[in-house]
Amino acid sequence: MNHSFGSDNHSGIHPLILEAIAKANTGHVPAYGDDIYTAEAKDTVKEIFSPEAEVYFVFNGTGANVLALRSITRPFNAIFCAATAHVWENECGAPECHTGCKFIALPSTDGKITPEQMVAHLAVKGNPHHNQPAAVTVALSTEVGTLYTPAEIKELADFAHRNGIYLHIDGTRLANAVAALGCTAQQLVTDTGVDVLSFGGTKNGMLGGESVIYLNATLGRDAGYERKQLMQLNSKMRFTAAQFETYLKDGLWLENAKSANSMAAYLAERVSEIDRVEIPYPVQTNMVFAKIPESAVEHLSRKGLYRNVDPANPRVLRWVCSFDTTREDVDLLIEELKESVR
Amino acid sequence: MNHSFGSDNHSGIHPLILEAIAKANTGHVPAYGDDIYTAEAKDTVKEIFSPEAEVYFVFNGTGANVLALRSITRPFNAIFCAATAHVWENECGAPECHTGCKFIALPSTDGKITPEQMVAHLAVKGNPHHNQPAAVTVALSTEVGTLYTPAEIKELADFAHRNGIYLHIDGTRLANAVAALGCTAQQLVTDTGVDVLSFGGTKNGMLGGESVIYLNATLGRDAGYERKQLMQLNSKMRFTAAQFETYLKDGLWLENAKSANSMAAYLAERVSEIDRVEIPYPVQTNMVFAKIPESAVEHLSRKGLYRNVDPANPRVLRWVCSFDTTREDVDLLIEELKESVR
Amino acid sequence: MNHSFGSDNHSGIHPLILEAIAKANTGHVPAYGDDIYTAEAKDTVKEIFSPEAEVYFVFNGTGANVLALRSITRPFNAIFCAATAHVWENECGAPECHTGCKFIALPSTDGKITPEQMVAHLAVKGNPHHNQPAAVTVALSTEVGTLYTPAEIKELADFAHRNGIYLHIDGTRLANAVAALGCTAQQLVTDTGVDVLSFGGTKNGMLGGESVIYLNATLGRDAGYERKQLMQLNSKMRFTAAQFETYLKDGLWLENAKSANSMAAYLAERVSEIDRVEIPYPVQTNMVFAKIPESAVEHLSRKGLYRNVDPANPRVLRWVCSFDTTREDVDLLIEELKESVR
Amino acid sequence: MNHSFGSDNHSGIHPLILEAIAKANTGHVPAYGDDIYTAEAKDTVKEIFSPEAEVYFVFNGTGANVLALRSITRPFNAIFCAATAHVWENECGAPECHTGCKFIALPSTDGKITPEQMVAHLAVKGNPHHNQPAAVTVALSTEVGTLYTPAEIKELADFAHRNGIYLHIDGTRLANAVAALGCTAQQLVTDTGVDVLSFGGTKNGMLGGESVIYLNATLGRDAGYERKQLMQLNSKMRFTAAQFETYLKDGLWLENAKSANSMAAYLAERVSEIDRVEIPYPVQTNMVFAKIPESAVEHLSRKGLYRNVDPANPRVLRWVCSFDTTREDVDLLIEELKESVR
Repeated sequence: MNHSFGSDNHSGIHPLILEAIAKANTGHVPAYGDDIYTAEAKDTVKEIFSPEAEVYFVFNGTGANVLALRSITRPFNAIFCAATAHVWENECGAPECHTGCKFIALPSTDGKITPEQMVAHLAVKGNPHHNQPAAVTVALSTEVGTLYTPAEIKELADFAHRNGIYLHIDGTRLANAVAALGCTAQQLVTDTGVDVLSFGGTKNGMLGGESVIYLNATLGRDAGYERKQLMQLNSKMRFTAAQFETYLKDGLWLENAKSANSMAAYLAERVSEIDRVEIPYPVQTNMVFAKIPESAVEHLSRKGLYRNVDPANPRVLRWVCSFDTTREDVDLLIEELKESVR
Repeated sequence: MNHSFGSDNHSGIHPLILEAIAKANTGHVPAYGDDIYTAEAKDTVKEIFSPEAEVYFVFNGTGANVLALRSITRPFNAIFCAATAHVWENECGAPECHTGCKFIALPSTDGKITPEQMVAHLAVKGNPHHNQPAAVTVALSTEVGTLYTPAEIKELADFAHRNGIYLHIDGTRLANAVAALGCTAQQLVTDTGVDVLSFGGTKNGMLGGESVIYLNATLGRDAGYERKQLMQLNSKMRFTAAQFETYLKDGLWLENAKSANSMAAYLAERVSEIDRVEIPYPVQTNMVFAKIPESAVEHLSRKGLYRNVDPANPRVLRWVCSFDTTREDVDLLIEELKESVR
Repeated sequence: MNHSFGSDNHSGIHPLILEAIAKANTGHVPAYGDDIYTAEAKDTVKEIFSPEAEVYFVFNGTGANVLALRSITRPFNAIFCAATAHVWENECGAPECHTGCKFIALPSTDGKITPEQMVAHLAVKGNPHHNQPAAVTVALSTEVGTLYTPAEIKELADFAHRNGIYLHIDGTRLANAVAALGCTAQQLVTDTGVDVLSFGGTKNGMLGGESVIYLNATLGRDAGYERKQLMQLNSKMRFTAAQFETYLKDGLWLENAKSANSMAAYLAERVSEIDRVEIPYPVQTNMVFAKIPESAVEHLSRKGLYRNVDPANPRVLRWVCSFDTTREDVDLLIEELKESVR
Repeated sequence: MNHSFGSDNHSGIHPLILEAIAKANTGHVPAYGDDIYTAEAKDTVKEIFSPEAEVYFVFNGTGANVLALRSITRPFNAIFCAATAHVWENECGAPECHTGCKFIALPSTDGKITPEQMVAHLAVKGNPHHNQPAAVTVALSTEVGTLYTPAEIKELADFAHRNGIYLHIDGTRLANAVAALGCTAQQLVTDTGVDVLSFGGTKNGMLGGESVIYLNATLGRDAGYERKQLMQLNSKMRFTAAQFETYLKDGLWLENAKSANSMAAYLAERVSEIDRVEIPYPVQTNMVFAKIPESAVEHLSRKGLYRNVDPANPRVLRWVCSFDTTREDVDLLIEELKESVR
């Protein structure tokens, strides 16, 4: 079986994106983003998020998160996140190493955190023995596929700002969130008071490309230097830009995300038919988690359909639907799953 | 005029490379390099350099240099380089920042350095007030287009090793060097005793992709973790790998480099016909530097044919030939140059 | 009331230590440790711990911990500690910032951790998305005054070494531990397999001075450079050395620690007479924790006898006995405590 | 011969300073600077420099410089200094490592730099490939014993501020400069527009203690956290503070410096009587450099009177006079010198 539910990183390039790369491959243009493709793509990003935003294209999600977080902290600061956060768990310590900050990983049962969880940690303010809270980072959609509503994001932003803290969103899967919430990106990110956003494309049909969007534009003032020093400045930027332009211009990003989300919904529906398989998190975007019987683990592993993401929890697996996942792919997975639990 | 001589980063993607990307875009494969494309491309790199080499694909040249240098130093070390080096001058301090090391930038009139220049600096060995020399990095071809011979590289390596120092080569343009020297990559890099190499593809026809090759394989033992922490691990690695495979398998890399080199030779020949324009460095690869009359600066700037790379030296400009530069492109440049100096 | 139970850092200098400083203040000697005082003091440290040890004197405890941990890790590593650890909670992120590592703070109810708690975290070995465990650091005596036995330390060391991990002890209060356990420092630290030790003097009668002792001497090979780069090299080293010499030579360190320990035991005994005051941790060294009624907090605060150390737990306070604490000091504290809970 | 001219770090503690430490050794006081000794000493520093200054006591000179420079930069910045600067040459890379910045070491024949030397380097402003200049640091007195006048400092400050750059002074020997210039510290530092000052005590009669003084107070806003994270927060701060109080209150700092300066003048006078010994730098404070005949090197080395500070220049030696240097000490040195050159 060729289709993988292991990660949306396993999918390839959407045909329109590949076509955009080929189209941009004509002649010579200036390097490092001083080209018309980049200018155009940045304008398109601004149309979607905010005319005042500062936009920086980068290589990958970890790079985006580090650039964003480094822009809003100094090494003596602390950054709040969920204990399930990718920045905390899956980036080989890049965020700690490159910001120098302490991360305060708050326990979470659904991938989300609340202002209340941060309150006790603010008691260290002014105490030189403790890292001073300066940022909170949340993933949207979260690492377990759940969603913050615009109201919840606003609540986080308001709390943060009342306490001298910036709000960062790890939006490597923001497309899936916007598609699922049925609001606009502006309503979800700009109007709620988010300060800076990592906005992804790689997992949703691009060859490769992520971005950092400073809604609070003054925070991005020095991001050009930071991006270069953080090794995230693409010399042949036009090819990142051309991808983003096609991705965003006519709604491809939301179309792809909707498709992946709907396949996850269908997958969850089919999974729920199967005895002895539990779905621990609400299926709100393009991910389905499942707790499967121990006896089923080996069968699925052999078929390449099992890939757990929590080493401490070997029986909970994660399926991620991609922009190109079809009902047939899901049906085949379900067949194998049924076979495995039999 | 569409063709730029400002940088080989201004060129696009070679058609075969683009085709390779398209071909690799079939179905789902594991992410982060656990795919067959990556396995194959790594094997091809090893065939060219050494069966014992450790190979890591990364996003860009600064990332490659930082990964390589971080693997062979600790923050209390010093790294020797030429004062003209890209790692010293053009990477916004990424190498210093991410290694923590002091760089000792040795003066150079031709982009090259010699063992003799390092000798006096070894006197600090054992003195805790001074960064301890641990690495030397040289560019090949250099930032001014010049070459080290295999004998010179061997001399650097031998000197380094006698003094407990590792030798790194910034080979973002190694293709141009190998093509010009008429030896094999193995003769130039492996047999001379180079410890670790940044090996580029982006400037020579790839969409984007560089690599770090540990000839001294034990130095690369932890490079997988370092690469991730340094934000240089591509999730959709197959597309970097597929580029490298096509780039290297049947000699495209050398073909492209030879073409660029020969166009630079032709350009230099034509430039030498023009009065009042001097060529300060021997033209050995794909770059031609020229000192032009002050009156010519404005004309060339307006045409987009002037881009100096040394802010302190506004009358020395650099032309770089790319894999797709043609005699016609050169002839047009010469015409404009003649016009400008008239 | 002049005597403080807020911290052993509130105490002054033992008369013999001050005398030693005055004695060392004769004429000129080489700086940075190339003097006879330093040579002598290092020999004395080696007599106590191991003839093979590498010894480095530093300014303060955070400096000692950072130097020790930086010597045994690289930034892609992870370091295990207790969630109650000073390195994790009270050093403003210096250990994370200067090692670049992720700390894995294990939950602890008594200030101690066990090998079992680390096992699950070893599952990430070889996975480039996760910091690779390389060190475990434990405090002895712990931040809540408890003790590891030599057998427990050996168990930690054996577990660590079986898994390619180094064991560091934060021994800012090692004197109190050795005094309480009734074994020798060698039995507790050297024979159990500890790799590197932060060994303190400041809190136990010195004007100021800590040290890093590499029992595994090869780990300390570069510590001279690291110490300087970490801003912990005292130019007038003789005055640190002279303190350590007097502190260690004739057992003053253990005498001071024993006295403080016995005062804590007496304090605990007296506290236990008082209703509505609980002692949450076993009193094994020079600290007594107490949970006091809310109504008592204000009274003790006003008298300067209340200083909680856990911002999230405002009713648990900590009393620390110093080398110069007397029964009369304890009796006065008890009177105030009785007054406050009345 | 007991008296060393190798460094003012070879001297001991002034009797009044030792007395002050003993006096402060009464009873218990709060740790980490929350004590009356620290409050008093900070006030005294403010009286001397500026009522608006922010004052932080630290352990050593490297720590002071790093704290000061870290407060006024981010890692993508560049810092100007003289190529002879202690921060560049003698701190094992601590300033580069802990700020992350690139240092631009400007050539200097007298230990000083001028605004003109920085101009060309400002051309990189706005270019993301280059570290952005943000600070200039100069030593006063310099590493070769020379002086900037208040007018020269003002010129540096004005130039810096016009270009968005902060001015830091490494004043480890500021006492010698103030004593020599015959102006007040305020005239030299505050009125000229210096932003932040490292102000030393260790080399001029203290047991050990340095400070960072933010004349531009907003720059010091976060220095309390930075100091702790940089491992420079003394727990028994009262003993640093008591030293500074005695050092500054009644002019001991200037008295000591004047004495050392006058001994250097006397030494220079005596040296100038000797044939074949040249003094390469004007003797303006407490240092005398001398170029001695090769044949004299061995004799002086054997007597411990030779200690060169430039490994590349083995025949230039440095003599430093301390607060306790006497005419007899100088006369003995001169005798040995005469003997050696005979």
